[in-house]
Amino acid sequence: MANYKILLQYEGTRYQGWQKQESSESTIQGKLEAVLGKMTGETVEVQGSGRTDAGVHAYGQVASFHLSTNKTPGQIQEYMNQYLPEDIGVIAIRKVPERFHARLHAKGKKYQYRIINSTTPHVFDRRYCYVYPDKLDLDAMKEAASYLIGTQDFKAFTSTKKGKKSTVRTIHSIDFEKIKDEIQITFYGDGFLYHMIRIVVGTLLEVGAGVRTAESIKDTIRSLSRDQAGPLSPALGLSLMEVFYEENEQI
Amino acid sequence: MANYKILLQYEGTRYQGWQKQESSESTIQGKLEAVLGKMTGETVEVQGSGRTDAGVHAYGQVASFHLSTNKTPGQIQEYMNQYLPEDIGVIAIRKVPERFHARLHAKGKKYQYRIINSTTPHVFDRRYCYVYPDKLDLDAMKEAASYLIGTQDFKAFTSTKKGKKSTVRTIHSIDFEKIKDEIQITFYGDGFLYHMIRIVVGTLLEVGAGVRTAESIKDTIRSLSRDQAGPLSPALGLSLMEVFYEENEQI
Repeated sequence: MANYKILLQYEGTRYQGWQKQESSESTIQGKLEAVLGKMTGETVEVQGSGRTDAGVHAYGQVASFHLSTNKTPGQIQEYMNQYLPEDIGVIAIRKVPERFHARLHAKGKKYQYRIINSTTPHVFDRRYCYVYPDKLDLDAMKEAASYLIGTQDFKAFTSTKKGKKSTVRTIHSIDFEKIKDEIQITFYGDGFLYHMIRIVVGTLLEVGAGVRTAESIKDTIRSLSRDQAGPLSPALGLSLMEVFYEENEQI
Repeated sequence: MANYKILLQYEGTRYQGWQKQESSESTIQGKLEAVLGKMTGETVEVQGSGRTDAGVHAYGQVASFHLSTNKTPGQIQEYMNQYLPEDIGVIAIRKVPERFHARLHAKGKKYQYRIINSTTPHVFDRRYCYVYPDKLDLDAMKEAASYLIGTQDFKAFTSTKKGKKSTVRTIHSIDFEKIKDEIQITFYGDGFLYHMIRIVVGTLLEVGAGVRTAESIKDTIRSLSRDQAGPLSPALGLSLMEVFYEENEQI
């Protein structure tokens, strides 16, 4: 058995998210395991750096798996790309030490949320952007985002039901880029709770629309209450851009 | 009756090209005319700057049409975008002088052909790029392209059957850009014959692969014979980027 780390891209549009499910619905993990099972004749378990929701895309998801094969890493990649659907691609692969685990060893993640702030159609990006045509106060959104930076309890910004797991996370940065009528919000943190980025974006959009003040975010954080945050923004605007590991584990 | 000029984007994947056909197959022109017919209750004829083949995309197609309506140009655009499929979008619209005709007044066109020169999957660009994984000699391709610049008879580079129409065209420039493993070839000319760019690309790829020399292009041009040129490259890599008019007719 050897341990492999892969760098993946996928368009989430057709999938029920990363995690395999008992039902027959299509998931990224399910597709990967099916192809590796076909290749080896054995059951292969694929560990992602984290789940992505139904409809969320990935430019740089990382996964790892153990398997026995005579194939070189390059041959495994070629086999996978031959049998995977064309909306999932293995960009890179390498052998890693036995102990490496894509989720447990992830040190940080970068996500991007894309908003088209206009009524002009974006034919080629229509599957990757959320269309929000109303006027937005970008400065207010940036101010609100600044209050989210740091190590805090983000319980108000997750859909997770009551549990004993910690809802404390560290957001290192939230960057805004405006390119013509598109707003790209890039989140970099040590990890993100279930639905966290989409709820943050929904809340920032309420700030941008003037429905709530930038300052109000401070109270929302303190409230630890999902009711105080904004709505869940649509999955299609969100993409996992990059997963960070210790330097010696870069793919 | 007023005359309107529109700027259009479309993803050609699902369409049988620009030009409407007697059969029920899906075309861009057919979709536009159906929506404008629905809006006005009358038959509207839409003139494109030129046809695009089945599977070819457009970032900047231009079309014009006459119709009677109480709607403002902005309202026409909104109506069209509401009823057009989401892989066709009206980016801009304006009223133009009665005599304006999108095809007859076009002074130049810019097309781009995208080649992925690697086996690495490009999940998000898979519908817009031709995958050609074998090694290519880009310098030889550039040299070959240089012989195509200027006003020449491009009869060897078209699939058009014998006809009395001129096959003389002017290519102003052919530019190459290499971005990681992608090669973008941008063609700017006064107009292009049926299949011309795709046959030119097929020929340039033969040069890049070493199947023919760059110099051989000169003989191919002189031959005026389709047999001497390379194969037709796939439609999906080609996009109409921009149509040029006299300065006072810019949209």
